[in-house]
Amino acid sequence: MRVLEAAVACLAEHGWSGSTVTVVCARAGVSRGAAQHHFPTREELFTAAVAHVAEQWLTAVRERARSLPREGPDRTYAVVDLLVAVHTGPLFRAALHLWTATTAEEGLRPGVAALETRIGREAHRLAVEFLGADESRPGVRETVQATLDMARGLGLANLLSDDSARRSGIVRQWAAVLDRVLHEDP
Amino acid sequence: MRVLEAAVACLAEHGWSGSTVTVVCARAGVSRGAAQHHFPTREELFTAAVAHVAEQWLTAVRERARSLPREGPDRTYAVVDLLVAVHTGPLFRAALHLWTATTAEEGLRPGVAALETRIGREAHRLAVEFLGADESRPGVRETVQATLDMARGLGLANLLSDDSARRSGIVRQWAAVLDRVLHEDP
Repeated sequence: MRVLEAAVACLAEHGWSGSTVTVVCARAGVSRGAAQHHFPTREELFTAAVAHVAEQWLTAVRERARSLPREGPDRTYAVVDLLVAVHTGPLFRAALHLWTATTAEEGLRPGVAALETRIGREAHRLAVEFLGADESRPGVRETVQATLDMARGLGLANLLSDDSARRSGIVRQWAAVLDRVLHEDP
Repeated sequence: MRVLEAAVACLAEHGWSGSTVTVVCARAGVSRGAAQHHFPTREELFTAAVAHVAEQWLTAVRERARSLPREGPDRTYAVVDLLVAVHTGPLFRAALHLWTATTAEEGLRPGVAALETRIGREAHRLAVEFLGADESRPGVRETVQATLDMARGLGLANLLSDDSARRSGIVRQWAAVLDRVLHEDP
């Protein structure tokens, strides 16, 4: 839906305070009445928007994962690179603004917390699948979680300035470390 | 200064939109005129506040680091735990709100970007020192950077809900992996 995509783009570019229903409707070229018919409150509109775009991204990531190297350190590198790329794009930026807005907007909190839990779980599930990680082995589950936390931290570091040069060295090194944790003899 | 500490506490609890100069002055028990004499704009007040409190924290961290285990895996664990603790406290929460506010407030951007670069550099320097990391060895610098990015990601994950149970497992595993990278034979 055009209005949901406009809401996420707006959040990413202008933050929560700059993202009113009026601004989003103008951007999407829909009437305020039409938007409010589906999403009665500003909170519902933006939470639904991030949920919708996150679903689209998860589908796109699954699609992209099909063309990654099949196995070995090259695959681990490609998966880490993909996970980090997801966290440095506009969707993460929009989600970041929605998360921080919950501090001032009590009404946003329950919906956003539930959404974050859902996306977090799905991201972990995909990471395990793409990495072929055996979570029954000691330390593997925590290392996969740490990889996603690191990706979130890199997303944050990219908010204020272009961090891509520093980031590429970290991704390469972390992928090498992770690959060893995943495949070493117990 | 009381007004700077009040500004950081206010940012952490109410976010940027809920942190006006008036609210901070009331909290600190100072007059608006007195605050504006030192910090003519809202942007200057909050950027100076995060800078001031960050300096206090860096001092406190240096102090705490003196009582950590002297060497070995226990020290690596204690250092990672300390770095993560810094990123899950109210100062990080305040900084997060200041960083995301720069998206909507152009005037905040240059000061906050400069501050973030300075704090980031100092945090890296301290991490290297505390870990006794030899950055001339391949991969060590990037792994230390990744540790700080992971700490930032854990701080973010802690914004919406108490993440401490999941976090402690991640810190333990990350410390074990980091210790190996720091001390393995080249």
